[in-house]
Amino acid sequence: MDTSLVTLTTDFGTRDGYAGAVRGVIHALCPAARVVDIAHDLPPHDILHGAFVIASACPWYPEGTVHLGVVDPGVGGPRRALALRTRRHFYIGPDNGLFTLVFARQEVVGLRFFDADSLGLPEPHPTFHARDLFAPAAAFLAGGKPFDALGWPASNPEQLNLRGPASRGEGRLALAVLNVDRFGNVVLPLGPEDLAGLGQDPLRPGLGLAGQAEPLPLRRAYVEGRPGEFFLLWGSAGFLELAQVERSAAEALGLRSGSVLELVRFN
Amino acid sequence: MDTSLVTLTTDFGTRDGYAGAVRGVIHALCPAARVVDIAHDLPPHDILHGAFVIASACPWYPEGTVHLGVVDPGVGGPRRALALRTRRHFYIGPDNGLFTLVFARQEVVGLRFFDADSLGLPEPHPTFHARDLFAPAAAFLAGGKPFDALGWPASNPEQLNLRGPASRGEGRLALAVLNVDRFGNVVLPLGPEDLAGLGQDPLRPGLGLAGQAEPLPLRRAYVEGRPGEFFLLWGSAGFLELAQVERSAAEALGLRSGSVLELVRFN
Amino acid sequence: MDTSLVTLTTDFGTRDGYAGAVRGVIHALCPAARVVDIAHDLPPHDILHGAFVIASACPWYPEGTVHLGVVDPGVGGPRRALALRTRRHFYIGPDNGLFTLVFARQEVVGLRFFDADSLGLPEPHPTFHARDLFAPAAAFLAGGKPFDALGWPASNPEQLNLRGPASRGEGRLALAVLNVDRFGNVVLPLGPEDLAGLGQDPLRPGLGLAGQAEPLPLRRAYVEGRPGEFFLLWGSAGFLELAQVERSAAEALGLRSGSVLELVRFN
Repeated sequence: MDTSLVTLTTDFGTRDGYAGAVRGVIHALCPAARVVDIAHDLPPHDILHGAFVIASACPWYPEGTVHLGVVDPGVGGPRRALALRTRRHFYIGPDNGLFTLVFARQEVVGLRFFDADSLGLPEPHPTFHARDLFAPAAAFLAGGKPFDALGWPASNPEQLNLRGPASRGEGRLALAVLNVDRFGNVVLPLGPEDLAGLGQDPLRPGLGLAGQAEPLPLRRAYVEGRPGEFFLLWGSAGFLELAQVERSAAEALGLRSGSVLELVRFN
Repeated sequence: MDTSLVTLTTDFGTRDGYAGAVRGVIHALCPAARVVDIAHDLPPHDILHGAFVIASACPWYPEGTVHLGVVDPGVGGPRRALALRTRRHFYIGPDNGLFTLVFARQEVVGLRFFDADSLGLPEPHPTFHARDLFAPAAAFLAGGKPFDALGWPASNPEQLNLRGPASRGEGRLALAVLNVDRFGNVVLPLGPEDLAGLGQDPLRPGLGLAGQAEPLPLRRAYVEGRPGEFFLLWGSAGFLELAQVERSAAEALGLRSGSVLELVRFN
Repeated sequence: MDTSLVTLTTDFGTRDGYAGAVRGVIHALCPAARVVDIAHDLPPHDILHGAFVIASACPWYPEGTVHLGVVDPGVGGPRRALALRTRRHFYIGPDNGLFTLVFARQEVVGLRFFDADSLGLPEPHPTFHARDLFAPAAAFLAGGKPFDALGWPASNPEQLNLRGPASRGEGRLALAVLNVDRFGNVVLPLGPEDLAGLGQDPLRPGLGLAGQAEPLPLRRAYVEGRPGEFFLLWGSAGFLELAQVERSAAEALGLRSGSVLELVRFN
């Protein structure tokens, strides 16, 4: 198994030296590592956004890839450092829910907490565990260190409450927006199985915006939407999306990740 | 010929997982590939901006480089997938005009349309051909697959109308802005040969802004402009630029890529 | 010594082709180079911001790394091109103060000016020395060319005046903000030795904002701040920072890099 690929997903942005320092540490500790960016302009402190980015991009990497994820508002506090292993990949980062969708959608076969002591490192700077703790852990895995040697067995990792649909009575549902992407598409926490569980047909979702007389149409691609129309679409990460053609549906409706959206059920 | 370098130019931004998924697919399908970013924060859906970025950055790469470009508002609709080959490089992306400046400035020696079927792949997700169609095509080329094996011979690829200068009578010209860069420099669709064709001297362009009594001065470098002054300059991609020193000329004049600019001819 | 790693720190942004062209030139001139981004979205023309990013990220790279830095408002003017060497690394870029903190914090063991002529290259485009002069110089070092062969011995390189604390009388200090990061943390030009020199205790800085009755508390990590409170913290690059928990202290106080901040001394 080739473990030399290390991906980075952070909210460090691309105007400061934080992501660059992390890359440097990985290269210094594991000369054979190939460091690949997923994204660094995640909205600051938005763990839910990070969880979605990780879930939609990381699974496409080859077997053995080490995924480092850092959206870490609690750095320096009591939150723990987590390493997890799926059948194909490794994930390293803060234990704050950032890997919630990995737990939800993949089989986790190993789970460890670790700290500077278990890695044999000096105390990390209390504001920059990405550089002093997570990057070394990723570099060690990339260099072939056994997963179990990173730390001690973990249990009950933190997980976000993804708040799927909850009934509000009289044919109404409320749910929390899972993600808003750059184009303003609104990802809902609804997979085909969730719709089926609600008694709605994934091919005819029968869901509408409050105040609308008809359900939102289901389109196959953004380009099939009609100008000005809101529509639903099965997005590329496997979730139902609310969109507008060449416009930001999120902006039009004032939504961001975590916003509560009310939908009306038809049929 | 070393085909292992694959560059990416997209409007996916750097806050979502789209570019990261594309990188993952390329690494998964071609372990020897080295994936290099050109840019990902292109203005969403701005094909003209993408065409300029591709034309100004891609030619600098070594022979054999595979360039993947994705600004694709028509994804999932009838637009085709294009592979083109110049004497030194390969280009992969949607057939929507994104490669217009490659056609204009380089010799194209091979041209193919392709689809999932011709690549031997399952149907792509209708909103994410970059991940499911273009990235695999680029990875196949990077892995040594022959160019002609990607698909079938193409003809009449889409091309943008770059609207060079058109006379508006009484010594006036109108042209469409080719690009506005991060610094607010305004790239005009005028090379030295265009100026010569207009009877203007590339070393003394003799062009002014509407309402100005004198032609714009030609400066050699941004730093040579005088504070507050608009000036012309031969930009690093070979086109005439309209600029201000340490200020955004585009903002001052309300211009973006595609905006129509009127110029007055002197001499 | 492995010189194949080349890092890039620029204000070119991530929406244009400038950084991509620079990467292409390095790959073309040194096929073995591995090009790594530090950051490209530095505030345009903000040399001080660049100096801080370079100082906080570059030292973490392995021995032999070549660091290319470009924030270059004076490109095409009289400013010179600089190559410097520390015990572990090489730095290449404009001689405009961008490496001020390298000089301040590391031992510089070699210093050269260079130009196209000394590199054996044609005249660079006057607006894009990064592509035509700095990238080739970095690629030559990455390819094993001796440092001294780049150009001629340099002396008196430009350096920014980092304006550390100056007394304003009556227990007041004025200093220039060294950096504001993405999260709005305000980095002050004060290391532990500067505080000691002022007679203040690094563990109890005894500094306050104008108008406050008490000194700012010193916290260990951002997460330890209390909501709404301004506090001090020893940042990950070794400087004192002024911060707020999950908020932008810079925005609240209207500060950016270079802004003058007045502090009140207690004890």
